[in-house]
Amino acid sequence: MQATAELQVIPLGAGVSVRREIERVVALLGRHPLLIETHASGTNIEGELHEILDAVETVHATLHAEGAVRLVSYLKLETRSDKVPTLAGKRL
Amino acid sequence: MQATAELQVIPLGAGVSVRREIERVVALLGRHPLLIETHASGTNIEGELHEILDAVETVHATLHAEGAVRLVSYLKLETRSDKVPTLAGKRL
Amino acid sequence: MQATAELQVIPLGAGVSVRREIERVVALLGRHPLLIETHASGTNIEGELHEILDAVETVHATLHAEGAVRLVSYLKLETRSDKVPTLAGKRL
Amino acid sequence: MQATAELQVIPLGAGVSVRREIERVVALLGRHPLLIETHASGTNIEGELHEILDAVETVHATLHAEGAVRLVSYLKLETRSDKVPTLAGKRL
Repeated sequence: MQATAELQVIPLGAGVSVRREIERVVALLGRHPLLIETHASGTNIEGELHEILDAVETVHATLHAEGAVRLVSYLKLETRSDKVPTLAGKRL
Repeated sequence: MQATAELQVIPLGAGVSVRREIERVVALLGRHPLLIETHASGTNIEGELHEILDAVETVHATLHAEGAVRLVSYLKLETRSDKVPTLAGKRL
Repeated sequence: MQATAELQVIPLGAGVSVRREIERVVALLGRHPLLIETHASGTNIEGELHEILDAVETVHATLHAEGAVRLVSYLKLETRSDKVPTLAGKRL
Repeated sequence: MQATAELQVIPLGAGVSVRREIERVVALLGRHPLLIETHASGTNIEGELHEILDAVETVHATLHAEGAVRLVSYLKLETRSDKVPTLAGKRL
């Protein structure tokens, strides 16, 4: 089942600037067979729902393995049965 | 890796009232080995991160199989490496 | 126009534990004419939409005045014209 | 106090496609002195916090006046005291 999504990951206790962690999140997402589009408030994602969820799990596991103490993620997920959802189809 | 989460699922095109679908979401979550607590703005969840993500995938797949045309989910995820995160530990 | 809402405030750069800031958020919300219900993933709110938004502005201004460097808030807002939305009416 | 934000508005009971309502949201935001950038999962906003919250209130009031029965909004808000937050500064 294809889905579109938006992911924002916030590391707590990592200081005021979290740019390094966000760049790492985007790099990790990029290793999965997903279409990704970064923007100022998160990263939009298109791909198989299972693959998106797998990528989110990898992001949490990897950032913790690399030293992150606490992570909060916000994930919006959209699926639909009447047509294949795409990021392109959701743009105005 | 244990996580805490909050899930809110919104069916689009299902009419103004979505109570039936929300009750179905909670029932589906309840089949997984997760601690769940419903509240007015969603369902709080505690359990293995992998299990939570698997439950979310099941919710989308099942609701579509049962007729939902479009689903939007909002999932907050929290993990931490310094202690085991629990819903009890996050209450004030 | 009455609304229901959920607010979660995350201070960045404040360390791994943010309990003190969250307690402050709830205390500040409590000064407004709003019904509030805390839970493990945020605070549910019922009241006039304008009052809710005013409270959110006060929370950001006050926490910054008290030393917070960076704040991220997640606010869910629900309004409806067919009946008065309440937290009680949204519970399962 | 300047803020950056992301707004996503979901009309319930308006059918599966909500493009018309989303275009209306963006048009209404555009009447306020705010920088707005639409993307596939919402609209990023930069401006005075008070103005952003005022715009959100206007969106809900106007869409209801134009016939929307139920509206759910997701608003991310970011403020910081160490520098002026901008959408440009948040892009990777």
